[in-house]
Amino acid sequence: MNRSALYVGEQTFVVEETAPVPPGPGEVRLDVAYTGICGTDLHIAHGAMDRRVRAPAVIGHEMSGRVAEVGAGVDGHRVGDPVTVLPLDWCGECPACRAGHTHICHRLTFVGIDSPGSMQRSWTVPARLLVQLPEELPLAHAALVEPTAVAVHDVRRSRLVAGEHAVVIGAGPVGLLIGMVARQTGAAVTVLELDPRRRALAADLGLATVDPATIDVAEYISEATGTAGADVVFEVSGSAAGVRTATDLLAVRGRLVVVAIHPTPREVDLHRIFWRELEVIGVRVYDREDYAEAVRLVHGGQVPADRLITRIVPLDEVAQAFQALAAGGDVKVLVDCGGDA
Amino acid sequence: MNRSALYVGEQTFVVEETAPVPPGPGEVRLDVAYTGICGTDLHIAHGAMDRRVRAPAVIGHEMSGRVAEVGAGVDGHRVGDPVTVLPLDWCGECPACRAGHTHICHRLTFVGIDSPGSMQRSWTVPARLLVQLPEELPLAHAALVEPTAVAVHDVRRSRLVAGEHAVVIGAGPVGLLIGMVARQTGAAVTVLELDPRRRALAADLGLATVDPATIDVAEYISEATGTAGADVVFEVSGSAAGVRTATDLLAVRGRLVVVAIHPTPREVDLHRIFWRELEVIGVRVYDREDYAEAVRLVHGGQVPADRLITRIVPLDEVAQAFQALAAGGDVKVLVDCGGDA
Repeated sequence: MNRSALYVGEQTFVVEETAPVPPGPGEVRLDVAYTGICGTDLHIAHGAMDRRVRAPAVIGHEMSGRVAEVGAGVDGHRVGDPVTVLPLDWCGECPACRAGHTHICHRLTFVGIDSPGSMQRSWTVPARLLVQLPEELPLAHAALVEPTAVAVHDVRRSRLVAGEHAVVIGAGPVGLLIGMVARQTGAAVTVLELDPRRRALAADLGLATVDPATIDVAEYISEATGTAGADVVFEVSGSAAGVRTATDLLAVRGRLVVVAIHPTPREVDLHRIFWRELEVIGVRVYDREDYAEAVRLVHGGQVPADRLITRIVPLDEVAQAFQALAAGGDVKVLVDCGGDA
Repeated sequence: MNRSALYVGEQTFVVEETAPVPPGPGEVRLDVAYTGICGTDLHIAHGAMDRRVRAPAVIGHEMSGRVAEVGAGVDGHRVGDPVTVLPLDWCGECPACRAGHTHICHRLTFVGIDSPGSMQRSWTVPARLLVQLPEELPLAHAALVEPTAVAVHDVRRSRLVAGEHAVVIGAGPVGLLIGMVARQTGAAVTVLELDPRRRALAADLGLATVDPATIDVAEYISEATGTAGADVVFEVSGSAAGVRTATDLLAVRGRLVVVAIHPTPREVDLHRIFWRELEVIGVRVYDREDYAEAVRLVHGGQVPADRLITRIVPLDEVAQAFQALAAGGDVKVLVDCGGDA
């Protein structure tokens, strides 16, 4: 039997026995080991995406597991293989897909939001979404490949290189991951964070941190860069103040990467963008190249998964996992879906 | 003797005899043929930049002329040479200069704004600012090299290539020049302009035009691009509506080039920037490479200077030139400084 956490609306999950879905042609059925909870999952649980996610729904897309059953016509995957899923399914026919930007397909299906996700013991997905994992990589750690791929994509789009100075505004899970991935390029990294707990955690991970409430950040970054300013700023706070700070900090030809989702338009200092020839760069999810690099970084320990995973909760207690994350203090909460036996 | 148009404040110019400035070491004295009036000059004349431009001041930086006298130590320029001036003087020592972005020097002197300009018969400048012109290029046409270099820079920064679709929002002189330079890349170009006179002029120049007040522009561009959207939008209107329209029109991975100066922060749809992985690109002035291309385009007629120059006014009537430009209906107004004898 399968066991699924069903989001039934109004911040409520029901865990129940369901029938496993046999893999059709081109599909595989997975034993799900772990599923991480991300900010979007929390939004869904809070009812903020009820128009897009129709309850009852199984959500979840940061996962790891093993191949349990292989459908007809699937090559290259065998029962027992450790895998994760790249949860993007594209049409292949729209202008974005035809231009090679399949991850921004006009009709993108985000698996785990627009179609059933991995917060269950047994999950059936198209085999083309699988990403093979190294056998030695603990499956709990592998649940961090997806958010790490986000950070890899963002840093890649920023064109950050060794010797440059990057600022990360906001030290939630994505901000921390960006900080660590940015550091791998050889760039200097400064993390701005108002919350003392998050700031302490960033410092524990070896990142230079600043409290923007107590320091003149523009002056600080100017001094740290010999009056040049920051080469790259990652806006991960989603706040109006974060956007303002970002343009203030950037050097001539600096790049502002818009990572956070800003649901309403923000005032942006276009005069500064003109005056310093700044760039603003939108970033969204990832592609296979980012996943390959994310697997490498999690596997190699440059992204220290064990220190970012602050809680693992059994599938039957999924509601507590969401409560813990909403309460703050955790970085990454995983749901143990039972497939890491 | 020299004859200079002096901005004395309060929209007033005084034309008077002044002593020519003999060229010092490394300098040249020019006989100025023509000086074009740009939007910034108009701002200055209206007193909007009195804090930066101290009256009495000779302004003007879109010019052409001939070398009249050569200072000590100047190589490569001879009396009679047709030239224009690249009106940027940089420090060479700040972080931007050291990074090779001398045109965005932290301490940039814009010649004709921060130091005396070319609205006079005789003008003495550092020889390093000279740009040699082809002997066959009419000097009146050559006064359009500077604004053309702006357009060349903007199109270069946009990375527009053949087969792409560009939209220009605003058909003032800079918008028209961008339209014509963009067309040279082999891209399709659509110009949005509310003013019927400007729209007619753009159409006369062979540019496809749309009145955004009467057409659903997003639908129009979507249809024109097979639902993809525009690859590049040049925002040249300086309006809040222009910024809104720009993000609405762009394709996945489209580029928004911020050409106009927006003195106050603007609301920008950062969600759209994230969702389509858009880029916003700041652009400011030009460099030598842009000037070389601008000379080539004006000389070759791809930028039809004779059709853009709608009025030539003698130096003694400079006030009328500013009034004509402020009244609208003109594209490019030149002041005849007397050196095209």
